[in-house]
Amino acid sequence: MEFSVNQIAVMLGGEVKGDGNEKITMLAKIQDAKKGQIAFLSNPKYEQYIYSTQASAVIVKKDFVARKEITSTLILVDDPYISFTRLLEEYHKMISFQKSGVEQPSFMHDTAVTGKNIYRGAFSYIGSQVRIGDNVKLYPHSYVGDNVTIGDNTIIHPGVKIYSGTKIGNNCVIHSGAVIGSDGFGFAPQEDGSYKTIPQLGNVTIEDNVAIGGNTVIDCATLFGDSTIIRQGVKLDNLIQIAHNVEIGKNTVIAAQAGVSGSSKIGENCLLAGQVGIAGHLTIANNTSLGAQSGISKSIKEEGARLMGSPAFEFGTYFKSYAVFKKLPDINHRLKELEDKILATQNGTVSTD
Amino acid sequence: MEFSVNQIAVMLGGEVKGDGNEKITMLAKIQDAKKGQIAFLSNPKYEQYIYSTQASAVIVKKDFVARKEITSTLILVDDPYISFTRLLEEYHKMISFQKSGVEQPSFMHDTAVTGKNIYRGAFSYIGSQVRIGDNVKLYPHSYVGDNVTIGDNTIIHPGVKIYSGTKIGNNCVIHSGAVIGSDGFGFAPQEDGSYKTIPQLGNVTIEDNVAIGGNTVIDCATLFGDSTIIRQGVKLDNLIQIAHNVEIGKNTVIAAQAGVSGSSKIGENCLLAGQVGIAGHLTIANNTSLGAQSGISKSIKEEGARLMGSPAFEFGTYFKSYAVFKKLPDINHRLKELEDKILATQNGTVSTD
Amino acid sequence: MEFSVNQIAVMLGGEVKGDGNEKITMLAKIQDAKKGQIAFLSNPKYEQYIYSTQASAVIVKKDFVARKEITSTLILVDDPYISFTRLLEEYHKMISFQKSGVEQPSFMHDTAVTGKNIYRGAFSYIGSQVRIGDNVKLYPHSYVGDNVTIGDNTIIHPGVKIYSGTKIGNNCVIHSGAVIGSDGFGFAPQEDGSYKTIPQLGNVTIEDNVAIGGNTVIDCATLFGDSTIIRQGVKLDNLIQIAHNVEIGKNTVIAAQAGVSGSSKIGENCLLAGQVGIAGHLTIANNTSLGAQSGISKSIKEEGARLMGSPAFEFGTYFKSYAVFKKLPDINHRLKELEDKILATQNGTVSTD
Repeated sequence: MEFSVNQIAVMLGGEVKGDGNEKITMLAKIQDAKKGQIAFLSNPKYEQYIYSTQASAVIVKKDFVARKEITSTLILVDDPYISFTRLLEEYHKMISFQKSGVEQPSFMHDTAVTGKNIYRGAFSYIGSQVRIGDNVKLYPHSYVGDNVTIGDNTIIHPGVKIYSGTKIGNNCVIHSGAVIGSDGFGFAPQEDGSYKTIPQLGNVTIEDNVAIGGNTVIDCATLFGDSTIIRQGVKLDNLIQIAHNVEIGKNTVIAAQAGVSGSSKIGENCLLAGQVGIAGHLTIANNTSLGAQSGISKSIKEEGARLMGSPAFEFGTYFKSYAVFKKLPDINHRLKELEDKILATQNGTVSTD
Repeated sequence: MEFSVNQIAVMLGGEVKGDGNEKITMLAKIQDAKKGQIAFLSNPKYEQYIYSTQASAVIVKKDFVARKEITSTLILVDDPYISFTRLLEEYHKMISFQKSGVEQPSFMHDTAVTGKNIYRGAFSYIGSQVRIGDNVKLYPHSYVGDNVTIGDNTIIHPGVKIYSGTKIGNNCVIHSGAVIGSDGFGFAPQEDGSYKTIPQLGNVTIEDNVAIGGNTVIDCATLFGDSTIIRQGVKLDNLIQIAHNVEIGKNTVIAAQAGVSGSSKIGENCLLAGQVGIAGHLTIANNTSLGAQSGISKSIKEEGARLMGSPAFEFGTYFKSYAVFKKLPDINHRLKELEDKILATQNGTVSTD
Repeated sequence: MEFSVNQIAVMLGGEVKGDGNEKITMLAKIQDAKKGQIAFLSNPKYEQYIYSTQASAVIVKKDFVARKEITSTLILVDDPYISFTRLLEEYHKMISFQKSGVEQPSFMHDTAVTGKNIYRGAFSYIGSQVRIGDNVKLYPHSYVGDNVTIGDNTIIHPGVKIYSGTKIGNNCVIHSGAVIGSDGFGFAPQEDGSYKTIPQLGNVTIEDNVAIGGNTVIDCATLFGDSTIIRQGVKLDNLIQIAHNVEIGKNTVIAAQAGVSGSSKIGENCLLAGQVGIAGHLTIANNTSLGAQSGISKSIKEEGARLMGSPAFEFGTYFKSYAVFKKLPDINHRLKELEDKILATQNGTVSTD
């Protein structure tokens, strides 16, 4: 990016004090900023830096009064922190979507169709009958199998692998190394102890506004016509396992290294902490919250439950039990003492008979 | 695929009623099927759909009697469900192996040799001295390092990375993002607190009929001439860690996110549930079954054991202990009450002296 | 590699007995060795093999006395095992760094700069403004985003993905499928139950001598100018999750499938065993040792602690508690018996009144 201070001031609705033609290419903290960069001053304890910074521009509060000379151009705004955050968001959007055009070599099948303002990085692959919307970014080494559809504004980071038949909505972000649509883990035991592979013929459907973390894996559904479904607004962290025929409800958030086994249905607005494991064929009610490393072996029917442990039960009760668990050697000892006392009492009673 | 209804009827040993020249390109459920697709009717509660479906053909039971007009061509068979399943399996085999030829750009070293009917997807890489059998499918972005050998009919999905020297058998399937042959995690502590890398010079050997899930990692053996070994028929799910010098016995099945530490030997026909962890240098007997999230810190010598917990012990006993764990605050309370009672009794005795 | 026996003898400071011009291309065990390979004999119980081996050369102890005819050339040294190990290390270094030059097709932006003796494998990608040092090896399918810097002698294995702005030091090794710099998992809850993405604008900084395992993921820091930091000498195994703004202290070792949540700071020389989980915003003191599958929910302030459990507490105490946990059904039973006895006694007392 390259903007003049004047352009940024217009964007922020601020007033320029100094040279509005200074060019800005980057944002920085006031204590680190160099020429060509813009910083902000909000917290008074950083005021010292504004007199020595090399920043080409600094965003300051409207009523800021300098106590020494300042070489940077100033942009005066109501709230410098909010203005800088807005600038960061714009910057983020810009770098996320700045890539466009086609780098070579890349591969796109004749029968594939892409929308406007696409980025196809070098070594990206688009299979036959693929349909891709507008503003989609396919970073290098991304793989889009046959018959995949991808909505508008979706970003596919480097090295993402999307198997044939997957459907992905609008405004999704999928991070590097994620695998979407690999075969579900289905094997039928044979009499000789070996296993026969059950063909996995369904797909994965990902709705709008979904985020998927690095190296997460989502398996396709088993049966032809069925889908593993990630509902709109779901956020999946890194290294998560989503098995075949799972459904993750709207706006549910799952932290890193959690796993959901085959055919389980997770409700809406659930929170699964890191390394949680959920067994197969379960139903988890809306607004369920699962503590880190919990293991879920039964369906959760009541909404809003908060669980912990493996197998998990009510959060508060778990910690009360766990507090006693830590004292178990003492409890064992006290129990033994009581037994001895009672034995002694009984013997005593007997002996005094 | 494109077949006529007549061709499919011959394959299924069924009888055609209607236009046998209809072209079929896809399978579908009867309630969703469109022109060019074939569906089946087995469960009577779906009978209504056969009168309205747009399917070009429907597989029905020999003795099916239509109660209204049907526009689809029918294939009459003994068991429509079994026939459709057979068709699904054929279809799956077909799509798994349909790819062939070489997409460009791709890379193959002069000294590499490949068999008949190979698929080398765009951006696939084959290093020097590689030997690849017949019908092998190397999807886009797959990497086959120097001196690797791969048997017949093995499918390497997009983005699989196979390090130098790995040996892979026949009829294996390796899913996207799997890493085979990365360095074992070996570091020798030095006096200054740093670690020196121990060279990892062995390889990975994968026998026939092995399935490996997405983003699973299998490290090479440490010593020159040694192998990390995955025996025939083993099925590994996604995101599994197999450390250096591990051996996984024949037909053992491991669920997602489980990990096996260095030099451990897992027996035949074992079942490891999701997120199980196995410490290093252990031996696990044949037919062992480990519950989800179990941690194994000692060798298991008796065949057929079923364990749970971290560290794990006998499954049934674990759950009995865990049932009491849930009541620990109550137990603590009851113990305190007993202590008070006995103290009171003793004091009482004393006071009545 | 190809060396004469004479060249190898010079390297090892050994004496040649036999044909010093024999060519050696590979190392092997004495029982497996073939022509063109070199083996060693240290343990007397393997002596039999030296009389039948096809090895072109065998390293033996200076004072070795043959009891039969030997066809292999011998290299006489003080300690054959140490000499062979040295040869293995040299061999490992050689194969690690043997690749050089540029395979085509590969991609490097005009503005990127690389040092001397680089390997850029086929389908490797180097973005704009990238700075890469000497002797760096970028294996096929590796991705180096814009503005990344990489020091000297660092090896990037096939399919590693390095996001824009990452800084990597000297002598690092990053294994296949690792993802460096993906977005931190940051989402702000909105009133309608959905989440708004918090832009992730920091980077990842990896110091010297760091090893990163296959499919491990390290997220970038959230704020502009901040870094997720992996200090020098850190060794990370496979499938590890390092969240945004984490710092891993010097020479800390983390085993496979462990995860560190956002903003936690791990000290120096710590050991985290497999599948450990650490919650967010914690500080872990130097020399902390965490048992497999432990869950850490509070900061650890005392150096050298050893913990186990979820949540974790002192290692020895955990196992004492766990030993009692296994006997909980018995404890429950004994407690019930005591209660009954006391009730009986009390009733007895009452009845004898």
